[in-house]
Amino acid sequence: MPDPTASDTRHMARALELARKGVYSTHPNPRVGCVIVRDGETVGEGWHMQAGGPHAEVHALRQAGTRARGATAYVTLEPCSHYGRTPPCAEALVEAGVARVVVAMQDPNPQVAGQGLERLRQAGIAVTCPLLAAEARALNPGFLKRMEHGQPYVRVKLAMSLDGRTAMASGESQWITGPAARSAVQRLRAQSSAVLTGADSVIADGARMTVRASELGLDAEATELATRRVPLRILIDGRLRVPLDAPFFQAGPALVVTCADATDHPEYLQAGHELLSLPGREGRVDLPALCGELARRGLNEVLVEAGASLAGAFARQGLVDEYQIFIAAKFMGSTARPLLDWPLAHLSESPQLQIIDMTAVGDDWRVIAVPTLAPQPATAPAKRV
Amino acid sequence: MPDPTASDTRHMARALELARKGVYSTHPNPRVGCVIVRDGETVGEGWHMQAGGPHAEVHALRQAGTRARGATAYVTLEPCSHYGRTPPCAEALVEAGVARVVVAMQDPNPQVAGQGLERLRQAGIAVTCPLLAAEARALNPGFLKRMEHGQPYVRVKLAMSLDGRTAMASGESQWITGPAARSAVQRLRAQSSAVLTGADSVIADGARMTVRASELGLDAEATELATRRVPLRILIDGRLRVPLDAPFFQAGPALVVTCADATDHPEYLQAGHELLSLPGREGRVDLPALCGELARRGLNEVLVEAGASLAGAFARQGLVDEYQIFIAAKFMGSTARPLLDWPLAHLSESPQLQIIDMTAVGDDWRVIAVPTLAPQPATAPAKRV
Repeated sequence: MPDPTASDTRHMARALELARKGVYSTHPNPRVGCVIVRDGETVGEGWHMQAGGPHAEVHALRQAGTRARGATAYVTLEPCSHYGRTPPCAEALVEAGVARVVVAMQDPNPQVAGQGLERLRQAGIAVTCPLLAAEARALNPGFLKRMEHGQPYVRVKLAMSLDGRTAMASGESQWITGPAARSAVQRLRAQSSAVLTGADSVIADGARMTVRASELGLDAEATELATRRVPLRILIDGRLRVPLDAPFFQAGPALVVTCADATDHPEYLQAGHELLSLPGREGRVDLPALCGELARRGLNEVLVEAGASLAGAFARQGLVDEYQIFIAAKFMGSTARPLLDWPLAHLSESPQLQIIDMTAVGDDWRVIAVPTLAPQPATAPAKRV
Repeated sequence: MPDPTASDTRHMARALELARKGVYSTHPNPRVGCVIVRDGETVGEGWHMQAGGPHAEVHALRQAGTRARGATAYVTLEPCSHYGRTPPCAEALVEAGVARVVVAMQDPNPQVAGQGLERLRQAGIAVTCPLLAAEARALNPGFLKRMEHGQPYVRVKLAMSLDGRTAMASGESQWITGPAARSAVQRLRAQSSAVLTGADSVIADGARMTVRASELGLDAEATELATRRVPLRILIDGRLRVPLDAPFFQAGPALVVTCADATDHPEYLQAGHELLSLPGREGRVDLPALCGELARRGLNEVLVEAGASLAGAFARQGLVDEYQIFIAAKFMGSTARPLLDWPLAHLSESPQLQIIDMTAVGDDWRVIAVPTLAPQPATAPAKRV
């Protein structure tokens, strides 16, 4: 296997850049980019835009035409070897006569899992893999988690004051953070396969959890991509407290997850929503079972936008892959509501995180943190969510 | 008055850099730097090292010698015009025959306040002022606040988890943040005129509030400067709960501020400490009166390292100029102790801040925030501190 060169790295970096264009639109597929280079000249570029449409390799091969013969193809994910909604890309690369394929990472999808690379090698194509694999993994945290662990990648969005509070004791909380932070949250929603919230948020704030084109803060082309697919809106409503005439339900079809017996409530289906019954212990929705079900449905990235109670339940049960915490430059005081309902008695139980980024977002700041150790078991009965 | 040129700015930037060398040692004097330039060549540099020693201008003039004649002097603060512990620098510049003096900012010290500049002008020296005044002000927040408002610059250091908690409900709290953050706090102590804490911290943690050379994380030269002066250690102990054999008192002389009658407690003086009686309302130490007293004693920067109760009291009373919040990448949970005891009922009372910096400090992060609006009056009875 030929070692990657500096120019290989440069071309792969470009392929990663192309792949990122699909951040809002490829669900349930992964984001993939492809660059085809012959004699040092880029002759084709492509990226996967949406499920059912051509894969990145096909776009790039079309652009390259006959110049693909003898060329090197750079792909951010192993070319597929199976017939899905489109024919296998490994086959297309062989037919186009490329001489070498550089692949950022193997596809953990059990339908591919090395078979794409094997097909290329069988056809006498030189294969280099991996290259910039960490960067390639970062493109598709949800797709990879689903393929590797049968779970979606759960991102919890929180907005707090500098003293770690989310709302006044009275519940007063609207607009803690400014317009730039709200735009960032809109973009997080748009890139997610699903946006998940709880009954409290929907009742207290009249939340609709939709993507609003005007608030994305994107240019026209990106806005079009970010709005052509509507993330699934999921409501956790254990006791079915949210009325069907709430703004949340008026905003489009939703998946409602409850402890109630779904067959007792045909009115949800009649109103265009799906009611999923997943009762767990102590009358609460079984969140681990829900995560498994969401992965089975092909959901990659799930954005949890909920209050301290539901977000805390995800956190306590070790279901969170990433926290995105928007921090407003104010104090809300010591009687205000906590970030997460997560009572802990001892420092030794304290969940460790790694802060991977802190950046200014308008007048606010965004902290991205990921858990570094397995969370501790809950130390107190969790609240009903 | 000649307009400053690009080379003026460059030389003043160098003078500011020199001034910064005095960050740990000039108390109660301001940090000042000086550069003397003749025909584009730097012929003298100096910075003020410690009270009683030569001022920056004198160091630079000594180095320049006869080459100071006809030269331009760059000084980060108006040269003094009064006889203090050293003769006036304005006079020294006149005698050395400099042709021009560029001054970053006027000295608000009522003993100077433009008279230094006036003395130079009277001697026929061209004077340019201000230049890089904001940068010059940032060198001496405490000295300037004391001169302009008769108050010290109060910096509150806090250490919290990402969910805004400082200790578990049980009080367990040691080592929330890592060694790099502790070094940063040691440097904050070393640059302060005084380090102030409360009885709770001293009793619960056995805190001594000393500067430890080995933990400063500085090179040998800077460590020497940072340890040649010991910041005044101030203990707020309204009811004299801290015993005189506590590690805090064993670590050296301290100023104890209390509600008790000082004349009833000669044992403090006998043990080498000063007892200051400043009873306020409701049996609490009068913190605004204390701040005034500290300024009268020539204290510039006061570092408050205290628990939620005392730090909250400073915050509620609008006495805080700057928060330095060290954030550990962990959650301490919703039953853990708050950042500040500061109960607020409504968002409209929420104190607004400006976050001026967020940087990684080892595995932790440091947020520097300053209040942007006058704090609201307390909305609930403050706790006894």
